[in-house]
Amino acid sequence: MKTVTLKQIAEKLGVSVTTVSKALKDYPDISENTKQIVKNMAKSMNFVPNASAVYLRTQESKTIGVVIPALVHHFFSKVIDGILNKAEKSGYLVILMQSNENYELEKKQIDLLLKKGVDGILISLSNNTNNFDHLKRVQEYNIPLILFDKIAKTVNCSKVVIDDRKAAYDAVTHLINKGHRRIAHFRGDLNPQNSIDRFLGYKKALEDHGISYDPSLVYICNKNSDFKDGYKTAAKLIEDHQNTVDAVFTITDAVAIGAMKYFSDHSITVPDEIAVFGFSNWFMSSVTNPPLSTVKQPGYKMGKKATQLLLNEIENKKSGISSIPQKIILPTELIIRATCS
Amino acid sequence: MKTVTLKQIAEKLGVSVTTVSKALKDYPDISENTKQIVKNMAKSMNFVPNASAVYLRTQESKTIGVVIPALVHHFFSKVIDGILNKAEKSGYLVILMQSNENYELEKKQIDLLLKKGVDGILISLSNNTNNFDHLKRVQEYNIPLILFDKIAKTVNCSKVVIDDRKAAYDAVTHLINKGHRRIAHFRGDLNPQNSIDRFLGYKKALEDHGISYDPSLVYICNKNSDFKDGYKTAAKLIEDHQNTVDAVFTITDAVAIGAMKYFSDHSITVPDEIAVFGFSNWFMSSVTNPPLSTVKQPGYKMGKKATQLLLNEIENKKSGISSIPQKIILPTELIIRATCS
Repeated sequence: MKTVTLKQIAEKLGVSVTTVSKALKDYPDISENTKQIVKNMAKSMNFVPNASAVYLRTQESKTIGVVIPALVHHFFSKVIDGILNKAEKSGYLVILMQSNENYELEKKQIDLLLKKGVDGILISLSNNTNNFDHLKRVQEYNIPLILFDKIAKTVNCSKVVIDDRKAAYDAVTHLINKGHRRIAHFRGDLNPQNSIDRFLGYKKALEDHGISYDPSLVYICNKNSDFKDGYKTAAKLIEDHQNTVDAVFTITDAVAIGAMKYFSDHSITVPDEIAVFGFSNWFMSSVTNPPLSTVKQPGYKMGKKATQLLLNEIENKKSGISSIPQKIILPTELIIRATCS
Repeated sequence: MKTVTLKQIAEKLGVSVTTVSKALKDYPDISENTKQIVKNMAKSMNFVPNASAVYLRTQESKTIGVVIPALVHHFFSKVIDGILNKAEKSGYLVILMQSNENYELEKKQIDLLLKKGVDGILISLSNNTNNFDHLKRVQEYNIPLILFDKIAKTVNCSKVVIDDRKAAYDAVTHLINKGHRRIAHFRGDLNPQNSIDRFLGYKKALEDHGISYDPSLVYICNKNSDFKDGYKTAAKLIEDHQNTVDAVFTITDAVAIGAMKYFSDHSITVPDEIAVFGFSNWFMSSVTNPPLSTVKQPGYKMGKKATQLLLNEIENKKSGISSIPQKIILPTELIIRATCS
């Protein structure tokens, strides 16, 4: 019996040899329909694949998909800035999607990106993402995937983060060293790892300095963790604890600035009556009155680094090299200003 | 000759009848490969399509391209937020690009989007774009194009803007009505239409109220029109005019906030010694000390409206209807706060 070639299958179906080759190897950029047709034809022609042959390279879309919770957060604007600039320089287009902190939407978006045939995906998870099957699906399709900022520990891929626990620990330790003892924490949602880690850093700093942890001083901000949350939560804090609290450590600068606005509106002096420590070093934090102490979180760098990692993994894949998941922890820095003198 | 049915083609290829039907009708959710295979098979079996069926739809990428000068401007974050949400709801993906206020990059990005085969393009021009051949090329390719915010008068396409001249006129008139006479203007770059229009509105308000225009009171901010520009320009203003100026109208809130920081650092009281009026109603403008008077510029709405227009034009094109260019002028509003009491 004469050997059946890829070319013969291709001719029979009127498609290219590349398509037949890729379909038989289950490349993700070939549709399920095509795969089925090609496999049926190969079977009916008694095609025997050549085990040693290295078939044609994956076709690239030169496009990456990016899913973030919300763009209007200044931090994510900076991250996207870094992603766009890095991708542009490397000749990649960026499809951007916002999950609006909604798991169902995030899942749909990931599926859409897979269907669209992007070369790789960058994602920062929404607050209510507890199931990671959609991310595992990306990996099953052999599409490079990088998580950044809001990550899932259990997904085995490369990640770019900061050490949220250490950053929070350092900020709260600074407050303690300045003599503060009753330190409230306006934390983020219960779910995201960075919110959990900042809370744990806060708690650990208290414990390491002999201050007992008081759960009534911890408040959960809404999913947006914005200015309004800060304002409302400060109102609640004062209602609950009057003037017994002497400092607040917040999940974001926006929350800190909202809290400061509440204090200012109610003649509570910062830092004399209450110190405030933010998180992210949004440029506005230097302009508030008084200027806000905060943790410098490198958004632009995070976007750039995550994109770099993704492009490396895309290159590796093209060369048939499997990438070993890395975790990049970017350094943070305390920026001490007048809100906690 | 017996009529060949869709079912027979489907059976021959081992796929569903739906797949065959969709492939013959060029549905976008069927891959090119499948379409080719199905069409080849239909041809080889002498399949005659039912003439009453509507075949050959336009092939769509269901992707739109968006080019903006810079994402980190709060205004553009809001616009993109509007674009992403509207596009998502309509089943479109968004490829986002930043020109970084660079005409050469903008031109390259437009060409890349054309090459990529997007269904339509939304663009806000960079400050140094003076040549519009790249936009005319989009139109020659018959790709729907919408300009927003930073537009070019001479490009004949739909546009979404605010009435910058009127908004500036109203803001400066408010300052005049409050008794200010020596009103400086920190304007944007010389090139963009919105920067020109805000300047013209400022000048007209002075003239209409019998105040002679003094060019030495007009300062040009850098391309970014950010906080640092405001700070530096305020320093220059005070150096040039000492305490003879009693108000400043700025091109953006960020510039206004930078100027206020300079005044605060140099014990110049706002509004007693100098009033400040911003532009955009960035949420931070309500939090400054004192809170900033500004023009409310509807960013989210602008993004949504521009996307709506674009999708309409894409639909029109599919139906063979030519779209008549529209100019949508979104209303603005003066937000009066304590910086110009």
